[in-house]
This record gives sequence, structure tokens and C-alpha cells, in this order.
Amino acid sequence: MSVTAPKGFLVGTAATGKRASGQDDVCVIYSERTASAAGVFTSNQMAAPPVVLAKRAVADGALKAIVVNAGNANACTGDQGRADAERMVATVASALEVEPDDVAVASTGVIGVPLEMAALDNAIRSACDTLSADNGLAGAKAIMTTDNGPKTATASVTIGGQAYVVGGMAKGAGMICPDMATMLCFLTTDAPMTHEACEQALLSAVGASFNKITVDGETSTNDCVLLMANGAAGGAAIATGGQAYESIAQAITQVCAELAKMIVRDGEGATKLVEVVVRGAVDDTQAHIAAMAVAVSPLFKCAMYGSDPNWGRVVSAVGASRAKVDPDSIEVLFAGIQVASAGTAVPFDEADAKARLDSEDVQVVVDLHLGDGQATVWTCDLTYEYVRINADYRT
Amino acid sequence: MSVTAPKGFLVGTAATGKRASGQDDVCVIYSERTASAAGVFTSNQMAAPPVVLAKRAVADGALKAIVVNAGNANACTGDQGRADAERMVATVASALEVEPDDVAVASTGVIGVPLEMAALDNAIRSACDTLSADNGLAGAKAIMTTDNGPKTATASVTIGGQAYVVGGMAKGAGMICPDMATMLCFLTTDAPMTHEACEQALLSAVGASFNKITVDGETSTNDCVLLMANGAAGGAAIATGGQAYESIAQAITQVCAELAKMIVRDGEGATKLVEVVVRGAVDDTQAHIAAMAVAVSPLFKCAMYGSDPNWGRVVSAVGASRAKVDPDSIEVLFAGIQVASAGTAVPFDEADAKARLDSEDVQVVVDLHLGDGQATVWTCDLTYEYVRINADYRT
Repeated sequence: MSVTAPKGFLVGTAATGKRASGQDDVCVIYSERTASAAGVFTSNQMAAPPVVLAKRAVADGALKAIVVNAGNANACTGDQGRADAERMVATVASALEVEPDDVAVASTGVIGVPLEMAALDNAIRSACDTLSADNGLAGAKAIMTTDNGPKTATASVTIGGQAYVVGGMAKGAGMICPDMATMLCFLTTDAPMTHEACEQALLSAVGASFNKITVDGETSTNDCVLLMANGAAGGAAIATGGQAYESIAQAITQVCAELAKMIVRDGEGATKLVEVVVRGAVDDTQAHIAAMAVAVSPLFKCAMYGSDPNWGRVVSAVGASRAKVDPDSIEVLFAGIQVASAGTAVPFDEADAKARLDSEDVQVVVDLHLGDGQATVWTCDLTYEYVRINADYRT
Repeated sequence: MSVTAPKGFLVGTAATGKRASGQDDVCVIYSERTASAAGVFTSNQMAAPPVVLAKRAVADGALKAIVVNAGNANACTGDQGRADAERMVATVASALEVEPDDVAVASTGVIGVPLEMAALDNAIRSACDTLSADNGLAGAKAIMTTDNGPKTATASVTIGGQAYVVGGMAKGAGMICPDMATMLCFLTTDAPMTHEACEQALLSAVGASFNKITVDGETSTNDCVLLMANGAAGGAAIATGGQAYESIAQAITQVCAELAKMIVRDGEGATKLVEVVVRGAVDDTQAHIAAMAVAVSPLFKCAMYGSDPNWGRVVSAVGASRAKVDPDSIEVLFAGIQVASAGTAVPFDEADAKARLDSEDVQVVVDLHLGDGQATVWTCDLTYEYVRINADYRT
């Protein structure tokens, strides 16, 4: 399962000893063959040293290994942070006898605290010594921070008689929580994708998954999604365009979407996964803008916590967005129940609506009745527990 | 005090009987002389019928009266809502024998519920019957919804030996809470300002006050700020430009700033007023963008609730904004204590910082060290109580 489900990928984990539980907090992913690779990274200008380095590592389109530490984001750590990130890469390159520019690094955890490199260095060497195809789940556990559990997904697809597997693991309990920063995702496949195919498929998959979710509307310093395609399952090279590409790209998107929803469901303090669908917008982009405006609204998220079919908050959030809205045509449905039509209230059974919203999976539909644009995003509710976690955790 | 502090303004209030407490929920502000007027209104596309009507009323630059009801926003109410808003104006025009286009209307409260016009009509007539210069505070109380108390402010200024007074009242406990929608502010002065002077002074005052605050980053369907200048104190007309204009504009800004801070301090669930100062930005606009990015961040606001000097959240929010940031030069101070410099941590006494943040007034300074741009905004903390109010209140 996880990133070791596809052929030719191994994972090793180890503990720096920094966690009270003694839990592993270092993970190395290794591909037996040099893999085509691509990455998508945070747009935050405070991007951490590991993000800068990982970007450079995938620039040539090839990777053999990824090293991840959890608990410390190595962000806002200046020159020392840059040197530490380089040393993490060098340690892996030396232990696995690969080129440093074939090693990507990712860090997640508290901002502004220097890494304790001696312990981390030892743990990285131990992780490299324990590489195994059986460590997929252990790897997903080792990269967790505030996550309530490991997040893994796999998909398989047959192309021209050849079976390919896509595996993935992610961590994150906020789309973003900058301090326990934040969202990381690692994807592997044994399909023989070209570098360009990796890049295009990853961008498309992220656009349809991680860019469609929000927990608190924050963008962290360490967000990173990496894909490695090592071709270990054989078959002809898969380039962009054509059915083979479409099939593998779809499998990658499926894995990303599953992981993305797991992140929202595990959002800090969340009690429910809320799907916000906007249709009838002028175009898909405007639909996405309107849906995100609802999904990040603290008032809407509080109403979802209270299972309150409070459509006024939905139309106000949409109206405040840059998406075009006609106040006299907007329609809102909560869990399948029409609550507003033509911009005004329609009678509905409040008790029934409240009961239906009192579920772990809720759907809210907004129809703007202006065009064919549509978009779906996922968010969670805003709860006492979110405030508790984020008011208390550090001090 | 309040809007009756300047000469020639009267207020009447009445109760529709909709409030359990029997409290007044209708307010009429009347100027004995036709006043120069200006307004600033919500940019929400779902702008309520009263907003549309009030915009039209101030378009000619003159007003004699304003009618306000609290508890029902008359938003998302369609044709009926438009007819009801017009009837509120007509009732005042008839009772006070003024032209309908000299009457502005404002509503605040729940979205999507039709007004109960019979009771409201009677209350408006009663309010017109009780006009008095002694009702300033009663007016400020009558426009409250979730506010914990009335919000009034006054300022006085002497221009060319002539004393002028500016009075104001506001309601709002969220910059914005679309359902108990939302922020209203009414300003009066007995200075003889021209229409153009009113417009310019109001835009400038709102830019330096209400546009510098946030409680939850939401923009309501009913936001409205109106200024009436009736010239009842005498003296030469005050047009834009020159010292007289600057003096009166400054007094108006002062009243708006006081009211704006009262709104944040009374923010839903808020326990403290947080001033976010950004300096050293490329320009003032970028400083404002960076400051607002911090002020709306739920993670930052939770940290403030916990009195946690969590500067990682500050730099991450700034980095995620569109304001230019150099990761290696950013500096952060909490309550006067430097906690980060040159983009990395500096040692500080955490207990001391926590103690200083454990106050009702907190200042956070971010210096980008890139230029001379600066901006100050005000926000509040995000608390359990915010979640409780907004998860529970409607159902």
C-alpha cells in the first residue's frame, strides 16, 4: 500500500528521538530505477529551504530518492536552514550512492526553529538502512504531525494489457497550518511516464484535488507534492497526449483526490466534510472563485458545525466574491433541499434540513443560473476544537 | 452625544414589538435643515434593497432624514423587499413632510426574511413623533443587533473662530456578520460642508477607519456609512481643499476611527483588540495588503486568543499575500518585543511576551525592510465564543 504499492519503490523510516512517543519522524522513499519526476510547490514567498532545494532537484525531471522529516519545517531558518537542507540531501546521496541532484527533500513542522542536525543525520542514515517494500504504511505514519492518522491511497490501471499502479501518501490537517506546516504529498507509479507527462499529469491532478480543498484558507511555507514514475512495470514510454496518458493521469488524479478529501476530513477540529458545488456560473473559473468564497467563510463553516441551513451566509459569501452573481437568480440547496430560489427564501422543513446536515458528509449546491460554469471544492466545519488546537498548541 | 451632538439634528426611536425585551428597534435621524450628504456602501453584489435605495437618495448630495430598522436586513427579499424599502421611505417622507428623495433607509438583521410592514410602519410613525435632541443614545441603542452596547463618538473642531461638532453612531459586531447584517454608521455635523466636501471627507475617513478593520473578513449585504452636514452652526461654506476642509475632515476621520475600533473590540466573541502595523513595505498599498493578510488569518487570530507569540504564523500570512516580501529581511515584534529578525528567530523571554499579549490591547509590528510603505489595521482574536455565536444562534 501507499507509495510502495507500485513496483520498484522502497521506504525506510527512523526516529530522531525528538518525539515523546519514540515514533518515527524521518522517511526516505527510494526508487530502484531513476524515475521521471515532477513537483508542485507552495506559492508562499516565505518558502522554506527544503522547498527551494526540492524545486531545484526536480528541475531536470529525474529523481531517485526523497527524504522527509516531520516536526520541524526548517522554515525561516536563514543560511543555517539552507545548509541543513543541503546536508539532508548529501546524507541520503552518500548512504544510497546516488547523485545529490536526484534527491528531493521535504520538511514539515514548527517554523523558525533550527533543525537538530546530529540526531536528524543519524536518523536519515538509519532510514536508508531499512529500505523495504513493506514500509509504505510506516512511511505514511512517519510524515504525520497533527494528523489523526496516516493518509494513503492507491489506484491501478491497465494500459495496452500492462497493469500499472499509482501509490500516494500525504500529511496535513489544514490546507494549511503554517506552524505544523503543512501539506506534503508523495506519489509514485511504476508506469514509464516521460518527464513532461509527469509534469502535466501532476499539475492537472493537483488542480483537481489539493487546489480544490481548504481547511482554513492559509497557504503554508512548506507545501509540496512530488511524483516519481520509474517505469518498473515495463511497457512503452507514456508521453503526453493519447489514451495511455489519459488513463495514467486519471489514476494519479484519483489518488490525489482521495488524499485531498482525507486531509479535509482530518482538518483541525473538523467534524464533517463539506462539499460545495457551484453551477450555473459564467465559466468554470468563476464557479471555482464562488465555491472557494463559500468554503473559506468562517460564518458558513460555523453554520455547518451547527448543522444550520443558513443560506444567507452562502449567498452573502458568493456576493462578496469576484464571481458574477445576479441577486435575483441565485438558488441554494442544502443536502438536496432547496432553501432559496430566485434570490429569496423558499419554505422548507428546517428540522429535516438540520437532521440531514447533521452528517459527516454534507453537500451544499449553489446555482447561479447565469451560464454553464461549474466547480466543486471541499472544506470542513469550523469548531471549538479548531480554536483550541490553534490557541493552545505551542505555548 | 451621538448624532444629536451637532446642532440641528433630532432622533426619534420606537419599538415594533418584535424584540422579546420590548427594546426599540427603529430609529429616525432628522436634520432641521436640508443637509449636504454622502454615503459609502457595501460592494457585495447581493446588496440589499435599502442599500440600493439609500445610494439613490444621496446621489443628489442632499438628505433631511434617515430611517433605520434593526433585526431584519431586508436582504434577499426580491420585489417585496424593494417595495418595503420604498414604503419605509414614503412613511418617513409623509410623517415629516419631506421629499422621499431626501430620505435614506438602512436595515440590519437576518437575511432572507420579509419585513413585517404593518408593525414597522407604525413604529416608524411613532419614531417620527418623538424626535428630540435628547435621543442620541437611544438611537444608538435602537440600531444594535448582536452588539454588546451602543457605539457613539463625537469630536469638535474650531475653524475661523467658529466651533463645529461631529457626531456618530455605529452598530456592528463583525466586519461582517452577514446574517445579523451588519455594519451601519451614521455621521452628523453642523459644519456647512458642500456636497463634494462631504463625499471626499467621508471616503477619506472610511478608508482610514472602517476599511482598516476586520473581525472575520466577511463583507455584508447591508454595510452603509452615511454623513449629513447641515451647516446649523453657521459660518462660511466649507469646500474641498484648504485648512477648513482639512480640519473638519480630520474630525470626521477621528469619529470614524473611534467607532471602527469599538466595532472590532465588540467583535463576536472577541477578548482583545489587536493592532497590526506593517512598515517597510514597497508602498502603503502593499503594506495594507500584508497587514490585512495577518489580520484575517484564523491561525494568527487563534494565537492571539492564546496570547501566543507565534511569529511563524505572521510571516507565513505575509508571505502568502500579494505584498512583496524578502524572506531574509522580515522582522516581527509582539507587544514591543522583537521575536524575529532578518527572517529568523531571535531569542526572547516567552513568559514576558505571553504576559504582555495577555492584554485587551495588543500590537503586532511587521517590518519588511523593503521601503517606506506602512499601514495599520485592527482585528480581534478568534475564540470559542465566535464559534458558539455563529454555530448556534439561528437554529
